[in-house]
Amino acid sequence: MPQDVTFDLPFDTPVSEHLQYARGRHLRWVWDMGLVRSQDGFEEYRSWDLPEAAARTYPHASAEDMVVLMNWFSLAFLFDDQFDAGRPDRADRVAEVARELIVTPLRPAGSTPRVVCPITVAWAQVWERLSHGMSLTWQTRFAASWGRFLQAHTEEVDLAARGLAGTLGLDEYAAFRRRTVGIHHSIDAGERSRGFEVPAQVQAHPLMVRMRDLAADTIGFMNDIHSFEREKRRGDGHNLIAVLHRERGYGWEEAAAEAYRMTRACLDEYLRLEAQVPEMCDELRLTDDQRADVRKGVEAIQHWINGNYEWALTTGRYAADKESPAAEAELAGRGSLDDLLAVGR
Amino acid sequence: MPQDVTFDLPFDTPVSEHLQYARGRHLRWVWDMGLVRSQDGFEEYRSWDLPEAAARTYPHASAEDMVVLMNWFSLAFLFDDQFDAGRPDRADRVAEVARELIVTPLRPAGSTPRVVCPITVAWAQVWERLSHGMSLTWQTRFAASWGRFLQAHTEEVDLAARGLAGTLGLDEYAAFRRRTVGIHHSIDAGERSRGFEVPAQVQAHPLMVRMRDLAADTIGFMNDIHSFEREKRRGDGHNLIAVLHRERGYGWEEAAAEAYRMTRACLDEYLRLEAQVPEMCDELRLTDDQRADVRKGVEAIQHWINGNYEWALTTGRYAADKESPAAEAELAGRGSLDDLLAVGR
Repeated sequence: MPQDVTFDLPFDTPVSEHLQYARGRHLRWVWDMGLVRSQDGFEEYRSWDLPEAAARTYPHASAEDMVVLMNWFSLAFLFDDQFDAGRPDRADRVAEVARELIVTPLRPAGSTPRVVCPITVAWAQVWERLSHGMSLTWQTRFAASWGRFLQAHTEEVDLAARGLAGTLGLDEYAAFRRRTVGIHHSIDAGERSRGFEVPAQVQAHPLMVRMRDLAADTIGFMNDIHSFEREKRRGDGHNLIAVLHRERGYGWEEAAAEAYRMTRACLDEYLRLEAQVPEMCDELRLTDDQRADVRKGVEAIQHWINGNYEWALTTGRYAADKESPAAEAELAGRGSLDDLLAVGR
Repeated sequence: MPQDVTFDLPFDTPVSEHLQYARGRHLRWVWDMGLVRSQDGFEEYRSWDLPEAAARTYPHASAEDMVVLMNWFSLAFLFDDQFDAGRPDRADRVAEVARELIVTPLRPAGSTPRVVCPITVAWAQVWERLSHGMSLTWQTRFAASWGRFLQAHTEEVDLAARGLAGTLGLDEYAAFRRRTVGIHHSIDAGERSRGFEVPAQVQAHPLMVRMRDLAADTIGFMNDIHSFEREKRRGDGHNLIAVLHRERGYGWEEAAAEAYRMTRACLDEYLRLEAQVPEMCDELRLTDDQRADVRKGVEAIQHWINGNYEWALTTGRYAADKESPAAEAELAGRGSLDDLLAVGR
């Protein structure tokens, strides 16, 4: 049911014209890089249609960059599923790989990973392209956003490994969700996708900091609603509806309704702040060129809120009822069909 | 001999009035935290007089903050020595600990380390204080500067473990040295020590980016000159004089003279760029308050160049001739007297 939940979003965002071309290139890359290793894993991966998510969230990327962005999505989403509830010791390997992914943007682009597995090798290659042409300031911001997300992911896996996934209070969960959703670096990548940078003083301004956090909250909560059936099937308690059910004693429908209301409140606050952007530009005495870059920066956030939403409504990743090897694996507590953290290919 | 080499620096920088008070507090902390674990290790540590380095590089810190900064210095310097040439497998433990240190500023301050040893426990405590009151933008910049340094340190240890420490060409070495010297985050901490922040658009400006790199080069090369005897004793080929000796076929005196000339050239270029700062402030249309913060930011760099220099001339860390358990350990290829990477205390 929750994958059907619709929101009335005030953004009209484009879809990349390079979707078909880039999807074909991307799917071959995923296979060649060993990011899917079985036919069933490939079918499951295809059903998610991450290329559409990339084409909606980065609609202005060039054809070649669109492939890079899709490649990046694949390794991030596939890594997300690598924890296996039946093997809690695997949390250490997840952490080791996460830390390799964290340091990749902190060394010269093109360096060889120290921890070698399909995920880290893929990321080293993607980062070389993703960082291309971007300033040190942007790379610093991206590296920290990405690092905070991966660190939070490690903490999430550690909680699951210790059987504590479903023990966070509501406020604690909301703060944690803002970190695990991975939106800050996703928005940062919007600048790379369109070849511009939001002025540093704008990124440092409290209004923009708050807008980014609210976008993360909005998208994180929306994802919780849309992925609820999948996560229930996987026994994943890291979901707003599950937290409301447990913490507030709500029935499932009531919990879903409250999650909807909370999501809408985040979105509404984001929209109120977005309206104050011109005022911020005046305060910072920006030039016309800088204001144009700020507008593109706000669009990058809109593309993410709306693009992710449109994709979530139809992706096979969040499908409620499915009968496939992937669903069977999930019911057995396994995060994924293919092991992507093993050494070598 | 090289510890005696003097430079004529055009900066007159103050020394903290809290040196004595903070030194006493700090030395007790170092012992209590298990960062020194033997009487010999403690004597060796005291002979370095890191408190003086902190008092010179952060002269405007409050008494309490001065203790925090000294504590931070201790764990960074002590970690630097934890590689043991006789145990190449120890490189993996160095990397594991380095990555824990890297992620500490990427999770909420006050979190418990995942990899537990005296160094990581100390850093988690120090970071909670060091990040206090600083903006997300500053924390992001510090985290990336710190992470790049620790990643480079890991690479240095990996080279040593593979017996490749002395194989870099001159240009390659200079680029690597800029990363291993750890000056970018040290300058970042100057803002924390004095309770201000350099405006984000200034940190993003190519002039400031270049000034920071040149300060790192100047200090890295100076350190190579002043620590030459120590590193020769330790068999450490990561030193500009050693690289010039090997790559250019220079005799030791000639290599030292060329290293001096290169250092001076970096400093001179830094000084030329420093003179362009007012022009940059005009270009960025900064307010008077912002210009005052930029001045303090430039002073933070000067405090580091000069303060580190003054300290290096007298510290026991770089002493050429010494007869002590530490010198004996170094001759035996061991990086330090105490093992600070073992689990627990």
